[in-house]
Amino acid sequence: MSSGKLIGVGVGPGNPDLLTLKAANILKEVPVICSPRSAESRPSLALSIVKFILESRDDEYEVLDPVFPMIEDEEALHIYWEEAARQVKERLQQGLDVAFITLGDPTVYSTFSYLEKKIRSTGFEVETIPGITSFTGCAASAHITLGEKDEIIVIVPKVDERLTPILEHADTAVIMKTSRHSKELQDIVGKDPRRKEIISVQNCGMSDEKIVKGFSRDKKYLSTTIIKFKDQ
Amino acid sequence: MSSGKLIGVGVGPGNPDLLTLKAANILKEVPVICSPRSAESRPSLALSIVKFILESRDDEYEVLDPVFPMIEDEEALHIYWEEAARQVKERLQQGLDVAFITLGDPTVYSTFSYLEKKIRSTGFEVETIPGITSFTGCAASAHITLGEKDEIIVIVPKVDERLTPILEHADTAVIMKTSRHSKELQDIVGKDPRRKEIISVQNCGMSDEKIVKGFSRDKKYLSTTIIKFKDQ
Repeated sequence: MSSGKLIGVGVGPGNPDLLTLKAANILKEVPVICSPRSAESRPSLALSIVKFILESRDDEYEVLDPVFPMIEDEEALHIYWEEAARQVKERLQQGLDVAFITLGDPTVYSTFSYLEKKIRSTGFEVETIPGITSFTGCAASAHITLGEKDEIIVIVPKVDERLTPILEHADTAVIMKTSRHSKELQDIVGKDPRRKEIISVQNCGMSDEKIVKGFSRDKKYLSTTIIKFKDQ
Repeated sequence: MSSGKLIGVGVGPGNPDLLTLKAANILKEVPVICSPRSAESRPSLALSIVKFILESRDDEYEVLDPVFPMIEDEEALHIYWEEAARQVKERLQQGLDVAFITLGDPTVYSTFSYLEKKIRSTGFEVETIPGITSFTGCAASAHITLGEKDEIIVIVPKVDERLTPILEHADTAVIMKTSRHSKELQDIVGKDPRRKEIISVQNCGMSDEKIVKGFSRDKKYLSTTIIKFKDQ
């Protein structure tokens, strides 16, 4: 019996219509779906996006929903990752393909990258299906162009000391999960002398999506901020 | 009669399976498809990606294929844009929706942004449907992670004097259309003392997709280079 394959499937920012045809076709057939949760008590957002496909299936499938807590402690996290990898490997060894679903795209700040390394290093096949990223979803919703002509786009997942020097050379900055650090962000961006257009999108692509001017401070939401710098 | 709406539809990097469900649904029904070509003699790549949907339709639809030449002369380009906008506006005024299809995503270095501004400024409704960007498509094909944890990603459409200072603060650099300037790129990147992993993807998502280590010099191809910088 040949081994199964791990498939990282990007499910896009929130709207189920933003799944790709390829992702939808895989989720109609794959025997195991793995969908991490940040806590036992929290349902997986990625799973809710693909629910309409799973509910339309009339065959049997398994959902693995390991917990990957949002903690900084690498060693503690490692234990959770090992357990998730163990569960996935067990299915692959049985010849079953496993689709690991992830919000947005599997190569952009996704938990998939950790699992992929573990699984690939043990010799199993891994495939990645790209998804709509939160930032292109946000730009579309907010009617903002991320890049035109020679413009440089930077994507920043966390506000730290590199933000000031990198913004200096950027035309567009995408700040992920802004509500976590909107105060620091506002201070740094405020010091840049260029004219700016600043838009934040909360819960992009979901039914309660909200577009606000400036920075988003409401920690309830998944938020992305797009800053367009203008020369004058 | 109410006016039609302009819909910018990202069709992804090349593989028709990477269309979103939303894009596919729109293209099954929209009365007018606008698909620019770079020259009279060249068929539109975006149109070839959605051909399987259009061929499955049994109703009538119109394809507009204005020429947008790849030239730098803004004034000359302006004439082409005006003509394309005129054709689109004529359909919108007749109450027909127009889907403008674009490779990748409409907000990332797409010709759609020019048309969108013209059309929106004359009061018509515009909607944008995000698409899979070439760089997430390439990262998936090449099994590279674009960003993890605190990593900063920069996306650069053209090699110019800003490349050196911006690369200094980046963990991942995506260089679009690299074959046009692979020599300059190699010189600049070679001066960065960090260890690097460099992968170029030619014709991402297409049947002749090719992944090469280092920079792509073959101008025949649409190529994207991903550079991952490592601290040691």
